Amino acid sequence: MHSPIHTLAPSHTHTSPVLSFPLPGLVYGRWCKMSWSSWILLVCLGVFTGGTNRALAEGSGSTERNCSAVPPYIPPTAVNTTLRLKSLRDAMKQQNISAYIIPGTDAHLSEYIAPRDARVTFMSGFTGSAGTAVVTQTKATLWTDSRYWVQAVRQMDCNWDLEKDVSIRSITDWLIREVPEGKEIGYDPYVFSVKTFSAYNFNLSPANRNLKSIPDNLVDKEWTDRPPLPPDALVRLPDSIIERTWLQKVEHIRNIMKEDPYQPTAVLLSALDETAWLFNLRGNDIPYNPFFYSYTLLTLDQILLFVHKARVSDDLKAYLNATCYTADCVELIEYGQERTQLRNYLLRSDVRVWVGTEYTNQGLHELITPEDKLMTTDYSPVLTTKAVKDTTEQRILRDAHVRDAVAVMQLLVWLEKSVPGGKETELTAAHYVDEQRSKQKNSRGPSFETISASGPNAALAHYSPTKETTRVLSVNEMYLVDSGGQYLDGTTDITRTVHWGTPTAFQREAYTRVLMGNIEISRNIFPEGTRGINMEMLGRRALWEVGLNYGHGTGHGVGNYFGVHEWPVGFQSNNIPFKEGMFTSIEPGYYKENDFGIRIEDVAVLAPVKTKYGNNYLTFDIVSLVPYDRKLIDTSILSPQQLQWLDRHYQTIREKMGPELKRQGLTEVHDWMIKHTEPFQTATDSGVVCSFSLLLTLLPTALIHDLL
Amino acid sequence: MHSPIHTLAPSHTHTSPVLSFPLPGLVYGRWCKMSWSSWILLVCLGVFTGGTNRALAEGSGSTERNCSAVPPYIPPTAVNTTLRLKSLRDAMKQQNISAYIIPGTDAHLSEYIAPRDARVTFMSGFTGSAGTAVVTQTKATLWTDSRYWVQAVRQMDCNWDLEKDVSIRSITDWLIREVPEGKEIGYDPYVFSVKTFSAYNFNLSPANRNLKSIPDNLVDKEWTDRPPLPPDALVRLPDSIIERTWLQKVEHIRNIMKEDPYQPTAVLLSALDETAWLFNLRGNDIPYNPFFYSYTLLTLDQILLFVHKARVSDDLKAYLNATCYTADCVELIEYGQERTQLRNYLLRSDVRVWVGTEYTNQGLHELITPEDKLMTTDYSPVLTTKAVKDTTEQRILRDAHVRDAVAVMQLLVWLEKSVPGGKETELTAAHYVDEQRSKQKNSRGPSFETISASGPNAALAHYSPTKETTRVLSVNEMYLVDSGGQYLDGTTDITRTVHWGTPTAFQREAYTRVLMGNIEISRNIFPEGTRGINMEMLGRRALWEVGLNYGHGTGHGVGNYFGVHEWPVGFQSNNIPFKEGMFTSIEPGYYKENDFGIRIEDVAVLAPVKTKYGNNYLTFDIVSLVPYDRKLIDTSILSPQQLQWLDRHYQTIREKMGPELKRQGLTEVHDWMIKHTEPFQTATDSGVVCSFSLLLTLLPTALIHDLL
Repeated sequence: MHSPIHTLAPSHTHTSPVLSFPLPGLVYGRWCKMSWSSWILLVCLGVFTGGTNRALAEGSGSTERNCSAVPPYIPPTAVNTTLRLKSLRDAMKQQNISAYIIPGTDAHLSEYIAPRDARVTFMSGFTGSAGTAVVTQTKATLWTDSRYWVQAVRQMDCNWDLEKDVSIRSITDWLIREVPEGKEIGYDPYVFSVKTFSAYNFNLSPANRNLKSIPDNLVDKEWTDRPPLPPDALVRLPDSIIERTWLQKVEHIRNIMKEDPYQPTAVLLSALDETAWLFNLRGNDIPYNPFFYSYTLLTLDQILLFVHKARVSDDLKAYLNATCYTADCVELIEYGQERTQLRNYLLRSDVRVWVGTEYTNQGLHELITPEDKLMTTDYSPVLTTKAVKDTTEQRILRDAHVRDAVAVMQLLVWLEKSVPGGKETELTAAHYVDEQRSKQKNSRGPSFETISASGPNAALAHYSPTKETTRVLSVNEMYLVDSGGQYLDGTTDITRTVHWGTPTAFQREAYTRVLMGNIEISRNIFPEGTRGINMEMLGRRALWEVGLNYGHGTGHGVGNYFGVHEWPVGFQSNNIPFKEGMFTSIEPGYYKENDFGIRIEDVAVLAPVKTKYGNNYLTFDIVSLVPYDRKLIDTSILSPQQLQWLDRHYQTIREKMGPELKRQGLTEVHDWMIKHTEPFQTATDSGVVCSFSLLLTLLPTALIHDLL
Repeated sequence: MHSPIHTLAPSHTHTSPVLSFPLPGLVYGRWCKMSWSSWILLVCLGVFTGGTNRALAEGSGSTERNCSAVPPYIPPTAVNTTLRLKSLRDAMKQQNISAYIIPGTDAHLSEYIAPRDARVTFMSGFTGSAGTAVVTQTKATLWTDSRYWVQAVRQMDCNWDLEKDVSIRSITDWLIREVPEGKEIGYDPYVFSVKTFSAYNFNLSPANRNLKSIPDNLVDKEWTDRPPLPPDALVRLPDSIIERTWLQKVEHIRNIMKEDPYQPTAVLLSALDETAWLFNLRGNDIPYNPFFYSYTLLTLDQILLFVHKARVSDDLKAYLNATCYTADCVELIEYGQERTQLRNYLLRSDVRVWVGTEYTNQGLHELITPEDKLMTTDYSPVLTTKAVKDTTEQRILRDAHVRDAVAVMQLLVWLEKSVPGGKETELTAAHYVDEQRSKQKNSRGPSFETISASGPNAALAHYSPTKETTRVLSVNEMYLVDSGGQYLDGTTDITRTVHWGTPTAFQREAYTRVLMGNIEISRNIFPEGTRGINMEMLGRRALWEVGLNYGHGTGHGVGNYFGVHEWPVGFQSNNIPFKEGMFTSIEPGYYKENDFGIRIEDVAVLAPVKTKYGNNYLTFDIVSLVPYDRKLIDTSILSPQQLQWLDRHYQTIREKMGPELKRQGLTEVHDWMIKHTEPFQTATDSGVVCSFSLLLTLLPTALIHDLL
């Protein structure tokens, strides 16, 4: 699925934009699927009055609030926030703060959050997946990006203002206007990363507006019906898909610590995938994400795992050596005790705790004093180690993509046949692909809510269909499906855009230019250690050439049964340099408002490549094995190199998918795959191809001239 | 000239590399010409015993020190630093510091420094243009990059160690090893930028090694024969080349201040080009750079110009309104009083001083307390404003490049004729081009020491010839000339690489791939606001494809009679986004050690381009108008688009240079230019070209087959 743009990431100067590329008029903001709860409220309240072909963005005025009217018009979809705002403001007075910031993340800085962490939603009514709320005694304001502006004014009452520039600078500028000099602004340090806190602080303190840490979240205090913790027990991964045991991983991380000149004595792990990876464990606390609430304090002589202990079975305790007390035994400590335990650890002399500032919350970070007990890097050594897949992880992740491609091809074959009948909708298509995936080996459900979008709905890059918004699929519209699966052995994510009728010339041009972006990145050869952000423009260049662009990132890491966005790998500015064995999505797109949307997304592994003169060069080896829509490819604007790449990739699809489709007995899909992977050119030498084709055109004339 | 790589720039984490691209085995470091003094010592001491074709890097062991020998062998080129180190160590004891850091810059963070600021040279004997020295009671260590390793061991005695990784992290790791925990490390805050200081501090303070600010430089105290200030008077630019008067500029900057939400009341200007630009003044304090020592404190109601007042003529005083005291009058204050005056200003209530952290020294920055009297951005509003040239600046800078191209073509014509005679050398060629430039209108001398390098000398990208190192130019070697001029109306910088005999296949391939880099950047179309660092890889991609690369930056800003590297424009990671009207060099290269070096450098202006669908797109318009060496271009590996671009550019050269060469009566050069700008293709449609050429090859066969 599409890669987010980190606009809420810290900006270290007043002037530097966080974005690497300017995308005027396009979407800025955390770019991810809508949270599971996003649409539920809308549905329950029956807000949509239009037919099935009516998209959200086209709703009539009556579905949106009108705060200028007398009296103000509040749609039934909006939540009355007067009382909860009053309670919050009372609590703010007690704390003597002039404003309170409510970010949309959890204590682990998760990109996708559980319902119990949806504090912005509770306070404002707004259910979008990206938003920050700020409340003063007289104002309440929500910052969210263009994907959610319509939704926001349908869900918020007139207590709330909407701000559209989601940079931290925009929020702090607002605070500087609204909060008098010398006054304090409250925040819960547990839902701010060290980096984000620094960015706020960097902007506010020169203006003499100071941040006040309030570790007891003020929203939670009044959130009486806050959803409970999920009860699911933790599970361990089977040995068959593991190359490194958790003890080997622990030893590896300790070796990194020992080799560091700063001599850290402990690493604090806050991100949920850090602990899940270290112990080869998974949970079910966040929809679509196999995570469990946890922290780990890994020291040179202890392993403290903070977790809800009731969820750890006896088997797991044995697996974790949870009954001994040496350096290789895991001490299970109740989740919530991490603050106390960290404090205790810091009482020792000669300790130094290593934290990654992107995924450690300020609440734990602020405990680590004096400064010489702290060591920081952007990412913990667990995240940088985890980013490079070992040979087993690479193999099983490739395998998962083969099975995943079966399900996607099944969808495309079925749609090709059934769409002309006029009965299928975005929703039935989404159900169909989810269903096919669930039948594949090791399936653990979708990796995010399937984006199944036809015509103008696909121009809303975040769109997932509901009963009320779903369009009937038609041979007259383009269709975009962005979906992925969780498998025990890997996470997948793939987008295909198709047209079952006759695309316009502009649609073909746009599609081909998007595809050129995929190919130009995929076939790029570069020294190991090059950053994604330094080659990301290859995904945009063919679009830029004609003045087109897209407003989201170009790719994100993906891995072995974790979240579908597996940072810090990818093409964002804060991603780490590429190394052999990393996996990333590649997903350029183009979106024409109220008309259509195109995105082509594949997953690739960073693979070594032999060059004529040099060593240590990498390229991308695409592991997503579903052909593109031939009807939408205008081969006349592809370069010979791009055509060659396409043909080679299609040959790979045949080699890898052919046997699997036969093994699964899917003859029809197999034939479809063969038909859709026909080579585009017959000879491999581009010069010859280019000339032969023209030769055929020119030869008769030449012959005639010569013979007459 | 080649763009530096900022390895001495701050790294904000322990792990993130400063470089955007990994360049294993290649040069890391501040990349600039050798300082004027670099070779003088070597020459005076007669170190070179080889013939004229003997390059520095090939020197015998006897020219290098051998500290393992008993007794150690010290070459005559080395400076005996025992006494000065003893004095420095005594001073360090008095300050109670365990180490003292000596960077290679001045109080204005200048890239090129005056002799009186060459403190690293004074302490160590090392004259290279990039180096940081650190002294403890028992050790003295110099950090410099690979360009200077040989030179360092020829110039330093055995008191000094050499370290080769020039990152700040390498220096602080060394300090953490050498300085006991809790001890202090001294530094002169005037020769550290705010950014560099932060980077040192970020690395050292977690390890409990603390920096101690010592504003009186410890080296200067014992530097009894420190060169004096230059006596040259300041000069104002003629009105004919100015669109904005200094008063207009002052008003513009004040407007930026007033519009800023942080409400700064003053801007402190520390970089020498900031003050020079603001007042349309120039000086002569640093070789090749028309600057004068100065600071400016521009407040909303005052203009304080810190300068050596004796150098300001009465005319200039009148020009600057230096006799009145309103907001539009310049108050001249003696250079050296900036600290006192800044302190006085900060005594006022309700003031806030804006500083750019890249070019403000920590010595002034540390005075600005409390925090709410400080506002920081990476660059001052003067530098970001100056980066975009107004229409007059664009016009006259283009004009300067036309005259400059005349001089470079004169050199190439002359070399083509005279090299086969076997009498010309790197040195005579350098003199020739400097001489031709000096004859052009508005010439103010070279903009840096001409790099004139033949064969293996060109593989040392920093090389400038001396009497001792100069090679005889030969038809059997490639030759690289990187030179530029200062003109009253603009600064130029251009590199051409040529071969007068028969290049090898590899030389042609490498040259062509470097040129492909130039073309791919130049013809790139991108949204305004895209950063150079995000497209810089286009300059490397054709090289990467076959496993080649280069170890320096890809381009730097250039402007109207300032330093030849005019930051913050360019392709470095800390450069600002591209806007219409900026000028940058584009200069990929390839260097084969002990064999040859290739660099092709042009200057381009960021120009708007009309695209098929979108608005606000830019591309590069090359203003350097000298053709490339046809002999070295292998057109078979160029794409049709690249050939088209070349032909269009050559057409531009003819249109712009033809009339100028005729006007100057240079018929021979004119004919040479016409010959060297012949189009490469006759038809513009690439498909047709590609096919027609093959058609001619294949047609006879086809006809034969048909007829037999």
